[in-house]
Amino acid sequence: MHTTAPSGNSWLIDDEVTDAHRALRGHVRDLRDLGSSMALLGWDQQTKLPPKGAAGRGRAMGLLSTVLHERRTSPELDALIAAVEDVDPDGPDARVSRRDFELSTKLPAEHVRASSEASSEGYAAWQTARENDDFEAFAPVLERLVTLAREAADHLGYEAEPYDALHDLYEQGSRAADVEPMFESLREPINRLLDQQPEPDTSVLERSWHAEGQELFGREVVARMGFDFDAGRLDVTTHPFCSGIGQFDTRLTTRYDEHWLPCSLFGTIHEAGHGIYDQSFDRLGLPATVAAAPGLGMHESQSRGYENVIGRSRPFWEFWYPRLQEVFPDATKGVDLDAFVRQVNTAKRSFIRVEADELSYNLHLAVRFELERALVNGDLAVRDLPEAWGDAFDRWFGLRPSSNREGVLQDVHWSSGLFGYFPTYTLGNVYAAQFTEAARRDIPNWDDLLRAGEFAPIVAWFDEHVYRHGSAFTGRQFVERITGGPVDVGPLVRYLEGRFG
Amino acid sequence: MHTTAPSGNSWLIDDEVTDAHRALRGHVRDLRDLGSSMALLGWDQQTKLPPKGAAGRGRAMGLLSTVLHERRTSPELDALIAAVEDVDPDGPDARVSRRDFELSTKLPAEHVRASSEASSEGYAAWQTARENDDFEAFAPVLERLVTLAREAADHLGYEAEPYDALHDLYEQGSRAADVEPMFESLREPINRLLDQQPEPDTSVLERSWHAEGQELFGREVVARMGFDFDAGRLDVTTHPFCSGIGQFDTRLTTRYDEHWLPCSLFGTIHEAGHGIYDQSFDRLGLPATVAAAPGLGMHESQSRGYENVIGRSRPFWEFWYPRLQEVFPDATKGVDLDAFVRQVNTAKRSFIRVEADELSYNLHLAVRFELERALVNGDLAVRDLPEAWGDAFDRWFGLRPSSNREGVLQDVHWSSGLFGYFPTYTLGNVYAAQFTEAARRDIPNWDDLLRAGEFAPIVAWFDEHVYRHGSAFTGRQFVERITGGPVDVGPLVRYLEGRFG
Repeated sequence: MHTTAPSGNSWLIDDEVTDAHRALRGHVRDLRDLGSSMALLGWDQQTKLPPKGAAGRGRAMGLLSTVLHERRTSPELDALIAAVEDVDPDGPDARVSRRDFELSTKLPAEHVRASSEASSEGYAAWQTARENDDFEAFAPVLERLVTLAREAADHLGYEAEPYDALHDLYEQGSRAADVEPMFESLREPINRLLDQQPEPDTSVLERSWHAEGQELFGREVVARMGFDFDAGRLDVTTHPFCSGIGQFDTRLTTRYDEHWLPCSLFGTIHEAGHGIYDQSFDRLGLPATVAAAPGLGMHESQSRGYENVIGRSRPFWEFWYPRLQEVFPDATKGVDLDAFVRQVNTAKRSFIRVEADELSYNLHLAVRFELERALVNGDLAVRDLPEAWGDAFDRWFGLRPSSNREGVLQDVHWSSGLFGYFPTYTLGNVYAAQFTEAARRDIPNWDDLLRAGEFAPIVAWFDEHVYRHGSAFTGRQFVERITGGPVDVGPLVRYLEGRFG
Repeated sequence: MHTTAPSGNSWLIDDEVTDAHRALRGHVRDLRDLGSSMALLGWDQQTKLPPKGAAGRGRAMGLLSTVLHERRTSPELDALIAAVEDVDPDGPDARVSRRDFELSTKLPAEHVRASSEASSEGYAAWQTARENDDFEAFAPVLERLVTLAREAADHLGYEAEPYDALHDLYEQGSRAADVEPMFESLREPINRLLDQQPEPDTSVLERSWHAEGQELFGREVVARMGFDFDAGRLDVTTHPFCSGIGQFDTRLTTRYDEHWLPCSLFGTIHEAGHGIYDQSFDRLGLPATVAAAPGLGMHESQSRGYENVIGRSRPFWEFWYPRLQEVFPDATKGVDLDAFVRQVNTAKRSFIRVEADELSYNLHLAVRFELERALVNGDLAVRDLPEAWGDAFDRWFGLRPSSNREGVLQDVHWSSGLFGYFPTYTLGNVYAAQFTEAARRDIPNWDDLLRAGEFAPIVAWFDEHVYRHGSAFTGRQFVERITGGPVDVGPLVRYLEGRFG
């Protein structure tokens, strides 16, 4: 595995840059270091905070976000970016920093504070509403969040429709008009494949899998894939996530269900995919200005790539299944490799996104994309949302949920003010399939590597084509550089047909 | 247990104060909330941070300390304090805030940042140096830390000697000239008692005590004493500590040694003593201006009081020993209460402070006080420190350590830039003995309460006499209010003679 970035960089190494670059990079490094306090407050809130500490933590995060917002919109930063623009107008240092600066300055401090408060309130209200299956109680809070989202779109600006302004925050350069046909192209092939699936048998995965063994096995897998535990951690939370806390500090979380192996197993691999990507920027020594993924679609391409494309493949399990049998001799008794691989690759229409298989998963996102687009564009009122959810779900799945808990109340995103985020999951699947087709052409022994538990050449390929560029390119540009063509659902459809056909 | 502060406050309740008080209290609340980010960065550094994240964390803490320093020295805060001084010049709101403000303004921002960075670096260097018993490797870093400490003393100002300026940070109003005779008065009685001790038999404590049981038992003990786990945590670290992270968030750490029961048992009780004190300010609803202990001596009076005065007493174990036998039937086999109490109350001269018994403990502090006073006053060079350590240890103990690991490299404090801190441990012992004599006069059934596992009346006594006043009085003033006399080693000597005579 590389320990420094290969040659042919998209950004200039330290010896090649001007003092203006160095000053900007140092300043952004400071901003990121200060931001790491905020990331830690958030991580700790979800993993360690005692219950009575919640109010104080909320205030602390609000105060720190004000400090960060001041610094991200300071005239000093503006001048440092301008100085680089003078000498290197097309380089990624100034370009990425300018975009971040403009996004921060376009949102007034008052709006940022109101959104932060509404998100905290929304998250709490959503938790109660979901528990009680009570959409009415959640509706006023959601209305406020939608109003704030529409205001944010006006502040940020857009060409075609308000939704684009928000979606662009998570996936630079992507618009609703790009996303819509992508989902449309997936509708028929996915529904066709779903119709072909046998009734899932996941009885083995529901056996007794002790948490200690799951943790041991999960750590072994992701460490061997390339997640560096000297620069990261794995902890337990209700809702798993990966958080890049600071330089050389990337943290995964997972949840152990002793009667559902996939929950932690594939959850840990998924978060480790994010983590390996996040750790690469420090490992490869990227300057602070570009040491990040350009958007969530790219990030999901890694997490979903490791989880599904690699982690559910037969060659992968040829190496790992014997080890799983060692750790869990009872749970794996009488189950051969083929049976196990079959059970981790079942698919079926169902109501809950986070429990969905990789085939039907994209349809869940299509439902959410349609509805949040309509909400943000003013074409759908919050009070009509439950019915609209049922209609949309029926259109995409041919099913209708019997409760809001199984429907519109299931996801955390909108309650936290995240609109325009959902399509990035499917973009991640699309990118992952396109990248994998390209990588397999360059690495003809891909399957043999997985059979040998060898990940270094695969990570090295991503180092070369993706990781070392940080945020110097957008997701769309990465696809163009790697495949020579545009974003295309073809490889994803071919991949799904190969796995589920 | 009280849930609000009793009447007769040293500070005014919210209904009684002016708008100026409210504005100052709100501002200080914000400062504390923002400071909680710093506390969390420190806690996480010692409990969770992956090793490669150390440098980034050091920078993050340095940056945040700059932000905090700006706010602690702002003209806005100055004006808010002045407004309270106008209407209530003698009240604790203005008095405590003015002292904090002045201490902060005396240290230039550049010095604060340099100290923070040197402490991070020092901590890392010390860990390696101690592991390798390599003082030479640590010396340059320690020299830098001593230089910064001497600069701090110059910035802060002092009357008699530089050391006083630093010691005052930890124990307001205490000077080296007060501390020296205190240690001198302890030298003879402690050495006399040590000479009388039989060779310790701690064989029971060295049996096999599984960590799970230790954690279970430790949590039960401190919860019953009054530590609120809904507003706190207990985690594992190499070096145990208690950290007040934020409002209703107080965290203890401990270390489990499966062949040395006292390590975690009394360590957890000790840290819980700090924790119960720290939690009391939020529980009793103190305003942010005074919601803290006035100094470390007062804090240690609680931790050492719970650990030793209460936690090693026979009545305490009359309640708890049967429960310990339940949790550890094997380790306690054939050991009666008297034998157990005898084993947790042995004393003997030894080299390592953190492993020392409560009798010889004070001599360890005397050694450190002498040496750090000489370092800070410029009377001792860092390169001469190992030899000076041996000489001082010989003077106080009649022993000489054979390695720096057993000597000057054993403690974390200096590596983190903490000079002037050590005497507060002995001040804590002195205060604890004075307070206990007073409390036992007010609570004649003290021993019966402990025999019944009842702590609420004891905590209530401290609520009334100590906790509810926060930092409205100094340690010295607390002693005067409670005993009617000055700080006095007499009660500590009597207590030690009672236990070890």
